[in-house]
Amino acid sequence: MTENPKYVIVVAGGSGTRMGADIPKQFIEVAGLPVLMHTLNVFFQFDPTLNLILVLPENQHLVWYDLIKKHQFNLKHLIAKGGGTRFHSVLNGLNLITGSGLVAVHDGVRPLVSQHTIAQCFAQANQTGAVVPVVPINESVRQKTSKGSVAVNRADYFLVQTPQVFAVDILQKAYRQAYSDAFTDDASVVEAAGYPIALVEGNVENIKITRPFDFSIMAACLQVGTP
Amino acid sequence: MTENPKYVIVVAGGSGTRMGADIPKQFIEVAGLPVLMHTLNVFFQFDPTLNLILVLPENQHLVWYDLIKKHQFNLKHLIAKGGGTRFHSVLNGLNLITGSGLVAVHDGVRPLVSQHTIAQCFAQANQTGAVVPVVPINESVRQKTSKGSVAVNRADYFLVQTPQVFAVDILQKAYRQAYSDAFTDDASVVEAAGYPIALVEGNVENIKITRPFDFSIMAACLQVGTP
Repeated sequence: MTENPKYVIVVAGGSGTRMGADIPKQFIEVAGLPVLMHTLNVFFQFDPTLNLILVLPENQHLVWYDLIKKHQFNLKHLIAKGGGTRFHSVLNGLNLITGSGLVAVHDGVRPLVSQHTIAQCFAQANQTGAVVPVVPINESVRQKTSKGSVAVNRADYFLVQTPQVFAVDILQKAYRQAYSDAFTDDASVVEAAGYPIALVEGNVENIKITRPFDFSIMAACLQVGTP
Repeated sequence: MTENPKYVIVVAGGSGTRMGADIPKQFIEVAGLPVLMHTLNVFFQFDPTLNLILVLPENQHLVWYDLIKKHQFNLKHLIAKGGGTRFHSVLNGLNLITGSGLVAVHDGVRPLVSQHTIAQCFAQANQTGAVVPVVPINESVRQKTSKGSVAVNRADYFLVQTPQVFAVDILQKAYRQAYSDAFTDDASVVEAAGYPIALVEGNVENIKITRPFDFSIMAACLQVGTP
């Protein structure tokens, strides 16, 4: 089996409003390093030959260059402009890729993804072309109804994480569709284009660092390490 | 308005198997105190006149008495025997309550519930008789199907926490039903008896401490405090 070129599009679109801070949440430092640099480091650790593409709102590019200087951050990466929606941001990153291979799309604010999760996603995508990592739901679940809400069986549902990994040609074909509000993640875009989505097990630590509480979790995780 | 007597049934059924430890997870010490004592303390802080009922598997009672001695834990509480299922455990606790009032049912392994969440639940239950705290889902959601899985709109779903608070007579009437596998929490029991369930906003820290990762979160939260 020949080794496919591997890409990861790291999407960092956040403006920080949910943190109630002026600084976009992906730039907040934890253990001395911005969240986004932790995230990029995890993928470099997985495979130093992996091609890193960072999608960042244009008005944050200068801040990013300053942070690179400040932290002497020397991982080679391409930078694409953020779009008006997540869909358009991913598309801008995807447009930098030519040729075949595998492409992961990953949230910039998910620095706690494990090496095992990344490896499983790429391995499965190499077989079937489209995969997302999921974890079971650990709580009871209720669904909104016209009259209020009703209990549903939590075992019928999964929480979807990233990286979501695809064959480059599949993701490119999927992203030629017109944008829809129903596109909540890349799997939903690829699914709408007619491709089945495989599931692999994610890691529970792999949360989005978006709320103040999440930063406490992240600090705790960096102390004990992820699998 | 007269003040209703308030009860909380704290259900501690865990055997610890999910932690891969010999010690039941509710007895594992965090910041020097077993998880279960943290949980009882939170309710005492909310209202020192609240009647605490602890439901514990009978084979754990002696360990519990030893822990009480070791930690000089002097919160007054009744102890009921755990049943074969969560349903039967709650029923054993409920059987200790006579007269009217409000009763909260709470997971012993949820020590991070906030004072605000508890207060909101009791206040709403005082109005409508049946309430659960919920939080929105922060991730994409997929639902199992016969062919695999499909993306659903996460905004249509809530994660359900505890305390779930009810008028005593409503919960007693609901628990006279025959047991069903579909009873995943107290709200589902009460709903099956024909009562509508009100929702209030929970707090995101209010997770079940069941996995090693959760203990890291709990330690972090105890350092920064919950709202």
